[in-house]
Amino acid sequence: MAPPLARSEADLFPDFPRGPLHAYRARASFCWKELALFLEGEDILRFKKTIFSALESDPLFARPSGRELSMEKYRELNFLRCKRLFEFGFLRMDELLRSPLALLALLQCLCMYDSSLATKVLLHTLVFGSAIYNSGSERHFKYIPPIFTMEIFGCFALTELSHGSNTKAIRTTAHYDPATEEFIIHSPDFEAAKCWVGNMGKTATHAVVFAQLCMPGGQCHGLHPFVVQIRDPKTLLPMPGVMLGDMGKKLGQNGLDNGFAVFHKVRVPRQDLLNQTGDVTPEGTYVTPFKDNRQRLGASLGSLSSGRVCIVTVAATNLKLAMCIALRFSATRRQFGPAEGEELPVLEYQLQQWRLLPYLAATYALDHFAKSLFLDLVELQQSLLGRGQSARKVELGREIHALVSASKALATWTAQRGIQECREACGGHGYLAKNRLGILRDDNDPNCTYEGDNNVLLQQTSNYLLDLLAGGGPGGPRCESPLKSVNFLQAYPAILGQRFEVTSLQDCLDSSVPLAAYEWLVCSLLRETHQKLTQERSSGSSDFEARNNSQVYCGRSLALAFLELTVVRRFHEHTHRPDVPPPLQAVLRRLSALYGLWSLSQHTALLYRGGYFSGERAGKMVEDAILQLCSQLKDDAVALVDVLAPPDFILDSPIARADGELYKNLWGTILQDSQVLERVSWWPEFCTNKPAIGTLSSKL
Amino acid sequence: MAPPLARSEADLFPDFPRGPLHAYRARASFCWKELALFLEGEDILRFKKTIFSALESDPLFARPSGRELSMEKYRELNFLRCKRLFEFGFLRMDELLRSPLALLALLQCLCMYDSSLATKVLLHTLVFGSAIYNSGSERHFKYIPPIFTMEIFGCFALTELSHGSNTKAIRTTAHYDPATEEFIIHSPDFEAAKCWVGNMGKTATHAVVFAQLCMPGGQCHGLHPFVVQIRDPKTLLPMPGVMLGDMGKKLGQNGLDNGFAVFHKVRVPRQDLLNQTGDVTPEGTYVTPFKDNRQRLGASLGSLSSGRVCIVTVAATNLKLAMCIALRFSATRRQFGPAEGEELPVLEYQLQQWRLLPYLAATYALDHFAKSLFLDLVELQQSLLGRGQSARKVELGREIHALVSASKALATWTAQRGIQECREACGGHGYLAKNRLGILRDDNDPNCTYEGDNNVLLQQTSNYLLDLLAGGGPGGPRCESPLKSVNFLQAYPAILGQRFEVTSLQDCLDSSVPLAAYEWLVCSLLRETHQKLTQERSSGSSDFEARNNSQVYCGRSLALAFLELTVVRRFHEHTHRPDVPPPLQAVLRRLSALYGLWSLSQHTALLYRGGYFSGERAGKMVEDAILQLCSQLKDDAVALVDVLAPPDFILDSPIARADGELYKNLWGTILQDSQVLERVSWWPEFCTNKPAIGTLSSKL
Repeated sequence: MAPPLARSEADLFPDFPRGPLHAYRARASFCWKELALFLEGEDILRFKKTIFSALESDPLFARPSGRELSMEKYRELNFLRCKRLFEFGFLRMDELLRSPLALLALLQCLCMYDSSLATKVLLHTLVFGSAIYNSGSERHFKYIPPIFTMEIFGCFALTELSHGSNTKAIRTTAHYDPATEEFIIHSPDFEAAKCWVGNMGKTATHAVVFAQLCMPGGQCHGLHPFVVQIRDPKTLLPMPGVMLGDMGKKLGQNGLDNGFAVFHKVRVPRQDLLNQTGDVTPEGTYVTPFKDNRQRLGASLGSLSSGRVCIVTVAATNLKLAMCIALRFSATRRQFGPAEGEELPVLEYQLQQWRLLPYLAATYALDHFAKSLFLDLVELQQSLLGRGQSARKVELGREIHALVSASKALATWTAQRGIQECREACGGHGYLAKNRLGILRDDNDPNCTYEGDNNVLLQQTSNYLLDLLAGGGPGGPRCESPLKSVNFLQAYPAILGQRFEVTSLQDCLDSSVPLAAYEWLVCSLLRETHQKLTQERSSGSSDFEARNNSQVYCGRSLALAFLELTVVRRFHEHTHRPDVPPPLQAVLRRLSALYGLWSLSQHTALLYRGGYFSGERAGKMVEDAILQLCSQLKDDAVALVDVLAPPDFILDSPIARADGELYKNLWGTILQDSQVLERVSWWPEFCTNKPAIGTLSSKL
Repeated sequence: MAPPLARSEADLFPDFPRGPLHAYRARASFCWKELALFLEGEDILRFKKTIFSALESDPLFARPSGRELSMEKYRELNFLRCKRLFEFGFLRMDELLRSPLALLALLQCLCMYDSSLATKVLLHTLVFGSAIYNSGSERHFKYIPPIFTMEIFGCFALTELSHGSNTKAIRTTAHYDPATEEFIIHSPDFEAAKCWVGNMGKTATHAVVFAQLCMPGGQCHGLHPFVVQIRDPKTLLPMPGVMLGDMGKKLGQNGLDNGFAVFHKVRVPRQDLLNQTGDVTPEGTYVTPFKDNRQRLGASLGSLSSGRVCIVTVAATNLKLAMCIALRFSATRRQFGPAEGEELPVLEYQLQQWRLLPYLAATYALDHFAKSLFLDLVELQQSLLGRGQSARKVELGREIHALVSASKALATWTAQRGIQECREACGGHGYLAKNRLGILRDDNDPNCTYEGDNNVLLQQTSNYLLDLLAGGGPGGPRCESPLKSVNFLQAYPAILGQRFEVTSLQDCLDSSVPLAAYEWLVCSLLRETHQKLTQERSSGSSDFEARNNSQVYCGRSLALAFLELTVVRRFHEHTHRPDVPPPLQAVLRRLSALYGLWSLSQHTALLYRGGYFSGERAGKMVEDAILQLCSQLKDDAVALVDVLAPPDFILDSPIARADGELYKNLWGTILQDSQVLERVSWWPEFCTNKPAIGTLSSKL
């Protein structure tokens, strides 16, 4: 099926060795190279190739062979690799700002190599850098260039030992002293220690520290960010008054040094208050453009959005790697077969298809969504550069905040579950550390928690939708948003009257079917959540209680369903664009339909309960459609992961090399381990130092 | 609420220190000590206390403090600890056989201390030992005593690099040589290497090896087990012709040495064929009591059942620990609160209750089920000792096999998901390795795969049910089984006509409601799976294809629903027994109702689709009942985990100590780490050896 590629593209796509994966590759309905070009474009593909090649040819990035890496050694390597990225010139501020998609590609490549490296770089440049850029003003821009020359190293310190989600209750203080024009940063006790701060454990020299701004008179103006120097860049020793330490071993991302800080009356110049949302004059007058402290805090924490959007991409990237591993394994692992004849690749089993292919579809859908969301955020940030408020800017900000919040939850949970399914789908070999599925799962796991706990974030999204409803007239909610994600709510009453009317399996195989069902579902959940809130309030609950008691089965489901709808919609539109090359249309539309239907099928109970589905047929048809799409996609699965897969060196999983030589590669890697065949040093503990059975029982 | 305890019980239950958990303890509706006594009995509680105290007072079992443990060191410690258990006399064969519940308690205690230790001991004694005992005959009993004196060390070698689930395709051969009366054990190539064998990597001296028994004439009689000496007990060096190695680092259980073996024409005496299901005469005649090779293989692999039953207990135990951690954390972690006033413990939030309390109920239900299943297996094995076949024995064997297969899947998956939910429910602190949730998850993970992949095992259970249906007349399936788990199928047609008829929320708060719904659900899924199979066959599929294409949404769901029904039924009966002390009735019945309803709520779509539920009300009532039960149980949650929790030393999680001093304990432990405040040794890499930005870009 492969059409001839231009000569310039030939070097971009080396042919795969002909091996056990060939049979599936030959059966693919499309050319994987054409799909890669359609999705990424030649420039980005070349950029990624450049990055991957640079890492592969530099011994500093060599995969540790045979030996366990201690946490200490891993962190050293991770830091040195971070530095090398600057030497490669991958992290030039001007370049990255010029091409947001290149920044995204860089993030994906680093994450594919090692999450700890991606996170370390991201926290230093994007999170620390953009906190200063977005929350500060011109007087702070002096901190930006040294980020990109590594003269300073940054971190972002919000969470404390006893407070995370409830940022308002953060207890670190910043008292203003007009005599010296300084703020005094102080941790009242160890429970207020800044903690979990990435890069703070061992390497950061500067931190954006959030503290309660207090005036000499005792008045407190709430949480504000300050630039605080925490280590001396000449020695990496802590600054006076700052106690810095490392959180210790985590479940994953152990190349990253998460740390804590206790501040003892540390003085910083008045100018180091990041004053975008509030400032203090030399004499000690507090000034802010915001009337409402809550609004001000929201704006001040807005810098978390870019981190969250990156997490959506990171989660999609983790899922990509896991899918590459599990599907190449499934296409080469044979087990059982018909009474006579060869054993079948496990990918031939309907059950294995159903376990994995919906996650493959989710990977494509989320990857597209992550990219589009990233571009939305770039648009927002560019519009914010032209300072001054406009109604559209505010609306765009709110819409993006709502989308970003729930998409972090959806993407990270989908990745977490998908990677676990991949681990199990690879059986025992999936449990071997060197096949990387465990590392991917463990590195992905904190994405569910940091930059906002998933369940807490979902409330942001449901609140946005509830506010729209509350702001609307009797005909339904307000319904025009800059990115159009909520425009369908214009038809709120009409949508609630719709019913599932697909009559043939064939008609069910398109993502327009789940799209329509999701619109009904979101409207239905919105109505139900609103009713629940109203009912709670009318029975005397405070607003706080009413909100808390309308999350389970209501607000939480609403936020997830709304985001799923948005992902399905964007991927549906993308795969039904007129410029999709004809040979790619079938496979892309199948992916879109599979993701939509599979995702929708988690909500079948609600579809029946609310009357959108009735009779046995509707539910069965969705199941049949899912299985049919799995069966249609299974011969394309290997080509679909060829599109996603980085080079073998980056993928780093012996059961998933591009040549498909599952057992040779696995066996070879097992034998490379140090001391694999050696007798243990403590063998006399078995051979001569025999236990005296039961002799200690008298001591019990 | 606490009634006075007898003096003898006072030392069994030391009082907890009065701390932040006190408020919840004081609000509990029951006395946790009374519940512990009711569930376990004084003897077992004392035995557990003895074990825990022995471990805590022996420095060999000290938790590593501050330092990372290398895999090599961890394995050495794990072996030494295993040896020490023999010195303590916990592993006396006669004692353990005399009291099966003590064996179960020992397994739970070891698993609570460290899964790697539990698995190492279990594989050596129970899996290796019972494979010899159950598959061999008197001539093999000589191998049993040296197991319990550690003169030999055992493992169980079935899986090969390229074959696991499909045991029939195992490729290791055992050719009989009548000239020397020996079998020649041989691995044809590395793909047939035995692999993943626990204890084989570094420590086992003997293995039960499964190989294809081949006669001189070339006839092959299928898979048989052989005792093969693989290392010299005097040196721990491999025996001639045996290449032994270690699989390398795994996602968890790294104290256990999983290994591989390649056999090069290794000769073993004829007598070392474990001849329970087939034997070879000295002259070379094959004799077996089985007519059918498949039946014979089934019987020969029957020894896997005891391992699987243990895994059900291990999974329930892992979940217990995770629940203790997450619920003590949730009762002491405060975040947000009403506008005026203190922040609330996160356990007060409905969402947190809904995330955790159903898993707490599942823990109690599965723990009870694991115990009852273990006793069923003991009954089966005792009945098998009286050799000779009886119809009841065969029926009991089949029923237990069906129950054990699906319960391994249900228990391990419930634990896996529950532990992950606990990890997330503890936020960032749940991600810290020293709080143990990650280790629990990673140690539990392989339970989903070994001793039979969960998805493959579910087929065993659905096949059992389908066979019952096929064996029945037009009125429904045969319906009397020794353990009565399928007796409800007597009413198959009548049950299919039943509908949900609960009209008030109050009536919905009892496990009889989900019990009835589950009976309908299992009948409905049985009918559907049968129809699907019939339809596949009539459309020309082979039996192999028909079975494969009736797993998703059919056989797989059927097996899980049947097992859930059985767990709900047994826990319902247990909690509604007339001898439940009145003060415990309310809390136990709430747990039973919550587990049943929550578990059932995963199937709401099917209940609607098949007409068991209709209208909005039914589904909402189940949801309301779940939330109501959560709310009723939240004040009991701390007392409920006090019942389950081992001493702090064993639980080993700073955020979950019995004193509830969350932050003091966590902070203290963080500061105990080695080098926590120290500057890294490679600090000049930041301070002086600065990167030359972009200098390497020309090389790209």
